Amino acid sequence: MTEYVLPNDTNTLGNLMGGQLMHWMDICAAMTAQRHTNRVCVTASVDSVEFRSPIHLGEIVNLESVVNRGFNTSLEVQVDVWAENPILGSKRKCNTAFFTFVAVDDEYRKTLVPEILVTTDDQRERYEGALRRRELRLVMAGRMRFDDARDLRSMLLKH
Amino acid sequence: MTEYVLPNDTNTLGNLMGGQLMHWMDICAAMTAQRHTNRVCVTASVDSVEFRSPIHLGEIVNLESVVNRGFNTSLEVQVDVWAENPILGSKRKCNTAFFTFVAVDDEYRKTLVPEILVTTDDQRERYEGALRRRELRLVMAGRMRFDDARDLRSMLLKH
Amino acid sequence: MTEYVLPNDTNTLGNLMGGQLMHWMDICAAMTAQRHTNRVCVTASVDSVEFRSPIHLGEIVNLESVVNRGFNTSLEVQVDVWAENPILGSKRKCNTAFFTFVAVDDEYRKTLVPEILVTTDDQRERYEGALRRRELRLVMAGRMRFDDARDLRSMLLKH
Amino acid sequence: MTEYVLPNDTNTLGNLMGGQLMHWMDICAAMTAQRHTNRVCVTASVDSVEFRSPIHLGEIVNLESVVNRGFNTSLEVQVDVWAENPILGSKRKCNTAFFTFVAVDDEYRKTLVPEILVTTDDQRERYEGALRRRELRLVMAGRMRFDDARDLRSMLLKH
Amino acid sequence: MTEYVLPNDTNTLGNLMGGQLMHWMDICAAMTAQRHTNRVCVTASVDSVEFRSPIHLGEIVNLESVVNRGFNTSLEVQVDVWAENPILGSKRKCNTAFFTFVAVDDEYRKTLVPEILVTTDDQRERYEGALRRRELRLVMAGRMRFDDARDLRSMLLKH
Amino acid sequence: MTEYVLPNDTNTLGNLMGGQLMHWMDICAAMTAQRHTNRVCVTASVDSVEFRSPIHLGEIVNLESVVNRGFNTSLEVQVDVWAENPILGSKRKCNTAFFTFVAVDDEYRKTLVPEILVTTDDQRERYEGALRRRELRLVMAGRMRFDDARDLRSMLLKH
Repeated sequence: MTEYVLPNDTNTLGNLMGGQLMHWMDICAAMTAQRHTNRVCVTASVDSVEFRSPIHLGEIVNLESVVNRGFNTSLEVQVDVWAENPILGSKRKCNTAFFTFVAVDDEYRKTLVPEILVTTDDQRERYEGALRRRELRLVMAGRMRFDDARDLRSMLLKH
Repeated sequence: MTEYVLPNDTNTLGNLMGGQLMHWMDICAAMTAQRHTNRVCVTASVDSVEFRSPIHLGEIVNLESVVNRGFNTSLEVQVDVWAENPILGSKRKCNTAFFTFVAVDDEYRKTLVPEILVTTDDQRERYEGALRRRELRLVMAGRMRFDDARDLRSMLLKH
Repeated sequence: MTEYVLPNDTNTLGNLMGGQLMHWMDICAAMTAQRHTNRVCVTASVDSVEFRSPIHLGEIVNLESVVNRGFNTSLEVQVDVWAENPILGSKRKCNTAFFTFVAVDDEYRKTLVPEILVTTDDQRERYEGALRRRELRLVMAGRMRFDDARDLRSMLLKH
Repeated sequence: MTEYVLPNDTNTLGNLMGGQLMHWMDICAAMTAQRHTNRVCVTASVDSVEFRSPIHLGEIVNLESVVNRGFNTSLEVQVDVWAENPILGSKRKCNTAFFTFVAVDDEYRKTLVPEILVTTDDQRERYEGALRRRELRLVMAGRMRFDDARDLRSMLLKH
Repeated sequence: MTEYVLPNDTNTLGNLMGGQLMHWMDICAAMTAQRHTNRVCVTASVDSVEFRSPIHLGEIVNLESVVNRGFNTSLEVQVDVWAENPILGSKRKCNTAFFTFVAVDDEYRKTLVPEILVTTDDQRERYEGALRRRELRLVMAGRMRFDDARDLRSMLLKH
Repeated sequence: MTEYVLPNDTNTLGNLMGGQLMHWMDICAAMTAQRHTNRVCVTASVDSVEFRSPIHLGEIVNLESVVNRGFNTSLEVQVDVWAENPILGSKRKCNTAFFTFVAVDDEYRKTLVPEILVTTDDQRERYEGALRRRELRLVMAGRMRFDDARDLRSMLLKH
């Protein structure tokens, strides 16, 4: 997905507003989730997003998304964002976010989602990260005990 | 801040899209941050957001935001969202998110932000939560060791 | 209701266009009318609106609305508008308008609207003003004789 | 000026929202005011507008505007609105509104506006009506005594 | 149809984007096609469009469209575009385009369109040009042999 | 470039309007032109576009563009459009268009554009087609005689 930054997308400094970028990331991730499940998918949660480098009026925003892992009726989609200055020919990574979607049928009931085939190292890393992020969400929401969040625990203690 | 859900804000099921809601939350939080600092504020990060209850076409969305804590050149703003059905006269809490903003001057340099006065229990709880969320962000980004994130550690081990 | 003035809302001088402000005022008033009646409400008329002070790009517009009086199947809603400069921390009253709405049922038939409870002096003043404004509308539209518009008459002769 | 009613312009009943129509009327009137004065014109006030007949999704809205009278640094522009159903081939008058604009120079100072040449009966009627509406605005705003509003007085007493 | 060029309609040079202009031309032509046929009309093709003179932020765009010719179930509509600078009082022709529409019934089946009455020389010229443009479209799409495109052939050999 | 068809992009039949699609095609092609030239590029002309298959609300539109040929200060960009139904998992080719852009410098003067390297058969075909389309544009605009349009002539006589 590619977007061109227009005046109404910017704040008074001429930079893309964070909320507009999140809006695009959500649409991009939803299309990937729907392609993977062949179902209507609704956003269930977004993991924390950092906005490192400002994106300017007239720049091009590239969004790429990929399914990281399926969990019964939900799936995690990763969105990577690059900003590109077409005049300078430069391109820089801006941020990464993790969206969780739920696939629903026509009566808005949750449905099973197909699993992901993991073959490359990069896929495996994203697949395992998805579990840790899910544990973190559940622990922070008070729906899982930290002791039971085994992958998250082992990662945090490694740091 | 109050918004009315129009057709273009909804997905094919007639529900508000998560990305559009995040866009409104960002604008709402940014206005609160600018009022507090009297500076232009740019979004630095958003903590994880959950979308629990779908919001429908024609419903009213109420957004309320408040500054939780200042950290030198950044501040955490909390946004609470309610959906209201004006025909039924019902209102329900939908979600809560935490935005971090950086205050900048005319040359886009970070500037100090004024501290928050904490007097009520509710304010204190939000003030302390802001530190835990900041530690979590830094640990997850690999910029702080879990051992040094004292408030986060003690909260996680309590669970 | 709170709106942030974006580039597309402004004329070539960088000031909010009057028509965009009226659009926001109408949405704000309609939400108040629907909350009061628990019905879908459609705009029947707007009383004259003055635009005294220009509102600039990047300023925040605050709109507050309240039901002044019910008349069988219609009701008058007052909208007050303030502009706020978040950098200067200043706020100024911009204008006031009076909208009349009709409450309709699912087949678009007019329905009765609940009366307003008037207890404070401010409410009473707005309640009485609503009748004068209604008489003025009817007289100007040629649907009431000036002699029969008793409240309007007495106010005009006082001036 | 001609507009096509799209989904986002309508309320939950599929009818054009009054505020959107006022927005179009303002843009239409402003273009007429700028053509007449060759100046940037800003909206100073709108006289009361009635919304008689609902306009539906997919209908065409025709707006026509004409300068009624100049008053030193301001001018009154009349906007007439018709709704057209292209499938039925039908067209109906919807409403009329009166906008007052102020012409400004590059430093936002009021400037003189050219007078209107009145030759036909229709022009004369609109020219005289403009004065009565101006008196009404000034009286209602408390800036003119009813006794001094001679044209308005004589019209009201005729009714 | 009249449009006012707002910031979001422009590229980074402050000129109207070609795609936005084509969008307006399509809406303008579709309204004319629907008025002529009293049917819903869908765009079938657009002939080549040239963008000669840039249109600036704050200028007024006038679009005029007329039916040139009907062909069984399709019709050609011509759109002429002028740009107007209200401050300078100047107006210039910008471009002309030819749209072909198909009239459809409620089940999306093609329906016959009424013929055009040709009385003036200008109408005759546009009527004959429509046939040549249709031949050119069919030849370029490989659906007609150049030898059979008699009007197009004779015009091209005249040059 | 990928777009999701929202309610406001559709006509009363729930299909994407041709003008909205042309708007997206123009933005997509402009980004490709700017990447190739590292200059601001303005749309000079669009060749005829056919709209074969309707695209529905909720479908995904994929746009791909590539530079076909440079001509001194202008270049031809081809845009291919596919519509995708994420629920059915189906995808179909919808149309192809040819845009010509002019690269300009900061003072809006035409600048030279870099040539295209042609290596594959597909590139060669598009490269040669670009010349024929340019000849056709010039002949139709009366700026070239048909006899001088050698590539166009030989193609038309082959049919």
